[in-house]
Amino acid sequence: MKISFIGAGRVAYHLANALYPQHQIVQIYARTQAKTQILATMLQAEAIESYQDLSSDIDILILAVSDQVIAEVIQSIPQHLHDVLIVHTSGSTHLEVLSNVHANSGVLYPLQTFSLQHEIDWKNVPVFVETQHSNDLKKLSELASSLTEKIYHYSSEQRLSLHLAAVFACNFTNYCYDMAQQITQTQQVDFDLLYPLIQATAEKALCNIPKNVQTGPAMRGDQNILHMHTAMLEKQGQEDFKQVYQLLSEQILKRHA
Amino acid sequence: MKISFIGAGRVAYHLANALYPQHQIVQIYARTQAKTQILATMLQAEAIESYQDLSSDIDILILAVSDQVIAEVIQSIPQHLHDVLIVHTSGSTHLEVLSNVHANSGVLYPLQTFSLQHEIDWKNVPVFVETQHSNDLKKLSELASSLTEKIYHYSSEQRLSLHLAAVFACNFTNYCYDMAQQITQTQQVDFDLLYPLIQATAEKALCNIPKNVQTGPAMRGDQNILHMHTAMLEKQGQEDFKQVYQLLSEQILKRHA
Repeated sequence: MKISFIGAGRVAYHLANALYPQHQIVQIYARTQAKTQILATMLQAEAIESYQDLSSDIDILILAVSDQVIAEVIQSIPQHLHDVLIVHTSGSTHLEVLSNVHANSGVLYPLQTFSLQHEIDWKNVPVFVETQHSNDLKKLSELASSLTEKIYHYSSEQRLSLHLAAVFACNFTNYCYDMAQQITQTQQVDFDLLYPLIQATAEKALCNIPKNVQTGPAMRGDQNILHMHTAMLEKQGQEDFKQVYQLLSEQILKRHA
Repeated sequence: MKISFIGAGRVAYHLANALYPQHQIVQIYARTQAKTQILATMLQAEAIESYQDLSSDIDILILAVSDQVIAEVIQSIPQHLHDVLIVHTSGSTHLEVLSNVHANSGVLYPLQTFSLQHEIDWKNVPVFVETQHSNDLKKLSELASSLTEKIYHYSSEQRLSLHLAAVFACNFTNYCYDMAQQITQTQQVDFDLLYPLIQATAEKALCNIPKNVQTGPAMRGDQNILHMHTAMLEKQGQEDFKQVYQLLSEQILKRHA
């Protein structure tokens, strides 16, 4: 297929590199000229400098832009792309944001955390597709099948819930690692020592219901340790972490009461 | 060495099974007779029914009991064990809790999350040793070396900080998975779909400073998504999760401002 991209950030980078060279990447347009140029060179695509330069001789236009600007970007697509299927890649944006403006619209959402330093193991990435028109679903699913076999037809509501769950399972989890790293740092203790524990915790969640493998002082209802820990955080001036400690411990206590 | 155990729970189970048969497990005493009997049979040890029956002809007595009862248990050890090295296995209990009562005391703390369903990969488990008397440190380190090569001589203060960090990196992380699982459940979305994301998030934390790989709406400062998510949680009646969402998002915003 012939694919063009709006956006040259992390999602565009990984997605375009996974589609190329099986598919032809025709054009790339993004606000940051330098990034656009680098990505276009990698993919033998044309870097364009204006929406007006977008060619309509493509199968799918992928908007791999941040959630905040999707509504603005779809308004900027010129009229001559009227018949082109345009999809966004956001987990948390309703299809309506596109379909209210552009009839042939859809969503291609890869559920993965993208950072430029890490390769994506695409065959394990679930991809969620949704289209306004049923005849577009076949085309979009076909494109998705060149990324992964794990293709799901999810409604916007389901996708939004899944994305919300991912914020808890991924973003908040990483912040828990971040807080742990900061605690070890203040006490000259080595964060690396927690690696086996971090791995084991993730592995256990993957072969159990997380509730059933909960451990720790809050789960055991050990008030002595809970008090000692909040006192330690207070003494170290880590007021923010103390608030997190108290809120999560309270909820874990309640859940396992 | 000749080892006896007080306790027959998860830590005692995994630790005793890792030490046996290289070391002789002499006796096991625990409140739950049935559990004690099963463990004793596995390890060809004697299940005893009273502290008074503890033999003093051992090298180390391991108190693998819950943090709350360590202080009580050390008070119950009969006088004829005066010269035996007695260690606890807790990350969050100061050595003083033992040494104030029993001179030959120490700590053997394996930093791992123990559940009966999962085998422990001991060679990757860091073990922290501490003793009241320096001549006991050699003996305890020798025992620890039959579990792992990763032996650390940590003070009680360092060990307590590490354990506090582990609560964030492990217990709170698991609760994040738990909340995610509950969110998917209410929306008839499949929690399994989050597995690759959970794995990728843990892997990234292991080869980076967690702060540098933070992603998500709070990190991007995306107020639209933050509002949408809190509204979704409110609508679904998940008031507790909304509180967690708001507190963690606020802190992530501040950390990446």
